Amino acid sequence: MREFKSKGIQYSSGKIQLLDQQRLPMEELWLEIESIEDMFDAIYFLKVRGAPMIGVAAVLSLAQLSKKEIGLEGFLEKAEYLKTSRPTAVNLMNCVDRITSLVVKNKNFLGVEAEAISIAEEDVELCQRIANRGAELVPPGTRILTHCNTGGVATAGIGTALGVILEAHSRGLVSKVYVSETRPLLQGARLTAWELEKAGVDFQLITDSMAGMIMHQGLVDQVWVGSDRVALNGDFANKIGTYSLSVLAKAHNVGFFMAAPKSTIDFNCKTGSEIPIELRSSDEIHGVSLIDKSLQWAKSSFPVYNPAFDVTPVENISAMVIDSYCFSQKDLKNMKLNELKEI
Amino acid sequence: MREFKSKGIQYSSGKIQLLDQQRLPMEELWLEIESIEDMFDAIYFLKVRGAPMIGVAAVLSLAQLSKKEIGLEGFLEKAEYLKTSRPTAVNLMNCVDRITSLVVKNKNFLGVEAEAISIAEEDVELCQRIANRGAELVPPGTRILTHCNTGGVATAGIGTALGVILEAHSRGLVSKVYVSETRPLLQGARLTAWELEKAGVDFQLITDSMAGMIMHQGLVDQVWVGSDRVALNGDFANKIGTYSLSVLAKAHNVGFFMAAPKSTIDFNCKTGSEIPIELRSSDEIHGVSLIDKSLQWAKSSFPVYNPAFDVTPVENISAMVIDSYCFSQKDLKNMKLNELKEI
Repeated sequence: MREFKSKGIQYSSGKIQLLDQQRLPMEELWLEIESIEDMFDAIYFLKVRGAPMIGVAAVLSLAQLSKKEIGLEGFLEKAEYLKTSRPTAVNLMNCVDRITSLVVKNKNFLGVEAEAISIAEEDVELCQRIANRGAELVPPGTRILTHCNTGGVATAGIGTALGVILEAHSRGLVSKVYVSETRPLLQGARLTAWELEKAGVDFQLITDSMAGMIMHQGLVDQVWVGSDRVALNGDFANKIGTYSLSVLAKAHNVGFFMAAPKSTIDFNCKTGSEIPIELRSSDEIHGVSLIDKSLQWAKSSFPVYNPAFDVTPVENISAMVIDSYCFSQKDLKNMKLNELKEI
Repeated sequence: MREFKSKGIQYSSGKIQLLDQQRLPMEELWLEIESIEDMFDAIYFLKVRGAPMIGVAAVLSLAQLSKKEIGLEGFLEKAEYLKTSRPTAVNLMNCVDRITSLVVKNKNFLGVEAEAISIAEEDVELCQRIANRGAELVPPGTRILTHCNTGGVATAGIGTALGVILEAHSRGLVSKVYVSETRPLLQGARLTAWELEKAGVDFQLITDSMAGMIMHQGLVDQVWVGSDRVALNGDFANKIGTYSLSVLAKAHNVGFFMAAPKSTIDFNCKTGSEIPIELRSSDEIHGVSLIDKSLQWAKSSFPVYNPAFDVTPVENISAMVIDSYCFSQKDLKNMKLNELKEI
């Protein structure tokens, strides 16, 4: 079958439709992607986001290209060009390279579409493995707090941390989800809330500052978050605000769980202190910009500190789900993540 | 002298100018207040806010009225009407009642203006006493985190918690202030940042979710906040997010201080669990509304939890400054606040 469909992308025999994530949740606009240039722009302008999703979108775009009249050299040039749409996305590089190696080896485009669809389906399966393993950690009636977006629009599949929540929900284990809005870019308020509403999950949106109060009120049993980079000792980087949640969870005896694919582990990074933290523009703190509207409430002259990520130390983690493996805090401290290097 | 001037209000022989706080920080618009009706609208539409400030604004408005051709009955009617502009503001009632008792006792308007200016000046002196006592707790080189707005536009004087910070800054004791933006209504980003910029204080604006990270990085020595209501055991209610900050401060050995006037103590309230928490509109979480612009990023259908306040337990407090008194956590636990009832 020459097609692939997920929450954020649809591919069918060379036709691509991509959900414009910049317009969510107010509008569900599917973009027709007709060229590598269209996909480049979609990635560059953040219409598609989430590391696994970007890789899948890129290779499906190459599958589309392979059906057009184009020579080997032209194809490889366009593939390299596509990689520059988000230079820091390792996943994008790896996925595109899988396609180009195949083309270079075969000296034709046979198998490109099948390989691209395989890459997409592998991500679906990987998400499902994470979700299944994670859901085993969720007892019946659990009330979960999650941060940022780690769901079906950030991946080709069900998601990572949000995938766990959705899988646990489909097993009837989740009684409530609290979504922190995730200032400054509001991925919780915009994307996670949208996914939970679609899935029929009972949820409430809160500001990031309310997390402590609801834990104190006994309204939260578990926190589930994703990760952008995991160090070998179990420390991990994730969206700013995750560290605060981990401290609050510990203080209130609330379980704190992280779910991510193995590709998130940086085997060259010994501890979280080695993870570089990106500082972003002051504009994000001075107000909010959406695709067609923006609002500024703080003066441009106000100095701002805007780290995009923070690092949660292994001491604050109850357990971590990587692919279909689960690591307790003790496992992590015993450097068990190292063993995944060989698998 | 028949005049009074503060950061947010100016009175001179019957002329009133009021800084429109709804337009801060983008625009500093001074409104001409020419009648009780003008002041009613300014209070009702939140152009003037902060419990002490509202009380002062109301009595200066009565001073203005007392200079017009009006009978005793008409004056008292307008005074009662003004009290309905913010029915929950105890301070507004008390201040207006001080003026009306005088009028009823004297059966004329002599002394009304002087009494109104006295009320304003008493608030200035009270703020300064709080600020002086608080500043004694700030060692040289202190880096302070503050939340919401407790400054010179919320009071007639220098403020409460922000007053402590400004006084300590003027004594050369403060090396840096971090301001949490204070979602949902952004009083930190709009008002506190504006006051700190005016005062020439070195500060940075952060999202509420960054507080944990900067404490972990060792960038914060003390947290200073205000309060809306203090229970006899030392628990206190304040803007949502204060509780999370108190837990984070405790986890990082950061001092946690509260400053407020004695009128904030509810001598009928034994513990924080008796303080009712106001739940506010979902709109505040779905987006941001300013006076002339608004932006919605979450769908109106997304369920929301929006408590306006939370309660910080006495266990998380290093010390509390009430007027010119300072209570350690141990003092508070020994019910020393009770002694203020008699003073």
